[in-house]
Amino acid sequence: MTEFEVTERNKLKRYPKRGSYDTETIYPILDEALLCHVSFAIDGQPFIIPTIHARQDDRLLIHGLKGGRMLEHIEAGNAVAIAVTLLDGLVCARTAFNHSMNFRSAVVFGTGAVITDAEEKLEALRCLTERLVPGRWPHVRAPDDKELKATTIIAINIEQASAKIRRGPPGDDGADLDFPVWAGVIPLPVIPQAPETDPKQAAGYPIPEHIAKYKRPTE
Amino acid sequence: MTEFEVTERNKLKRYPKRGSYDTETIYPILDEALLCHVSFAIDGQPFIIPTIHARQDDRLLIHGLKGGRMLEHIEAGNAVAIAVTLLDGLVCARTAFNHSMNFRSAVVFGTGAVITDAEEKLEALRCLTERLVPGRWPHVRAPDDKELKATTIIAINIEQASAKIRRGPPGDDGADLDFPVWAGVIPLPVIPQAPETDPKQAAGYPIPEHIAKYKRPTE
Repeated sequence: MTEFEVTERNKLKRYPKRGSYDTETIYPILDEALLCHVSFAIDGQPFIIPTIHARQDDRLLIHGLKGGRMLEHIEAGNAVAIAVTLLDGLVCARTAFNHSMNFRSAVVFGTGAVITDAEEKLEALRCLTERLVPGRWPHVRAPDDKELKATTIIAINIEQASAKIRRGPPGDDGADLDFPVWAGVIPLPVIPQAPETDPKQAAGYPIPEHIAKYKRPTE
Repeated sequence: MTEFEVTERNKLKRYPKRGSYDTETIYPILDEALLCHVSFAIDGQPFIIPTIHARQDDRLLIHGLKGGRMLEHIEAGNAVAIAVTLLDGLVCARTAFNHSMNFRSAVVFGTGAVITDAEEKLEALRCLTERLVPGRWPHVRAPDDKELKATTIIAINIEQASAKIRRGPPGDDGADLDFPVWAGVIPLPVIPQAPETDPKQAAGYPIPEHIAKYKRPTE
């Protein structure tokens, strides 16, 4: 387990008891989330972009979105903040005040660079594809030279990070526990449904095991 | 339907065909999402914070997170960018290159202010609670003066916004359509599970209708 250095940048100021700064807590959250939001600012104007990511050791691979603001910004050496949030449930308390959500979130601070080495880029694409659907990569047509050139992958070094987690029942206490209303949690898992075959599918290819068995991790 | 002005700030540069700038497209995405990510920068350092939100006409109510960086930043009149993203499915193409996600995202640009009027604040809290679980507010204990004081709600004026949507099957074409692998979409809805009663529940309160019937909208 590695602890990230805690500075003004990544220090959790609200509900610090829910926070962590260790890779053992943070990395599984990054790995479970299917998408992230990238925050950056240009001349003081904040932007935010949702994109796919995959963690490779202590860095995050993200799609470079060629021609976009983010790529230029990162290539110039500027910092980004990246967040992922897994929503686990709705916390229905007896008091309006204690209503909340069960969630696991992680925020990463870092700078990045475009991956230029061809082999490293191919491996990054493999990571991102496997991130989407584990076991998919060996079955599909690999990127050709034109596609590789058309794709930009950025690797963001995870310089600092934090996680925040809320679990469990509502936080009501004292006399509120007798307030006459049901209280508890509505779990909100993501549940994959039956795969929908592409209408353009030429022949009746069977649904392969890596698709049929696809499932999301659950808390 | 209202179209937001398109400037350099909110113009979609990647896949502009997937983009929209009208309230009719953007507002339902904001309303369906249970949480948002707020992006802002202080002295060039970007931050990102997940929080709950509720739309009230042309403004977004968000939790002010007293004592945090965001509140101070917004109170000083600085801009934020807020994003919500609904993930609808995994797009499994025949080519690695065409792998994607079906999603609906919205980005809002604006500035905000803390709600100070007591009545307006109570109504904002009602909105946020009803946003979490519709029908809940009349059943729970309303906030008392102490709780109202301990809560900070920020209203962000939606000055500009955009939406981006990807739907449908993979984008493979030409000879790739004959590549011998199953292709299609794995739908990823959020499906509420049986409510978990608070272990501290004093008596056997029945699960009320607004909880038993809670469901998520689906595409």
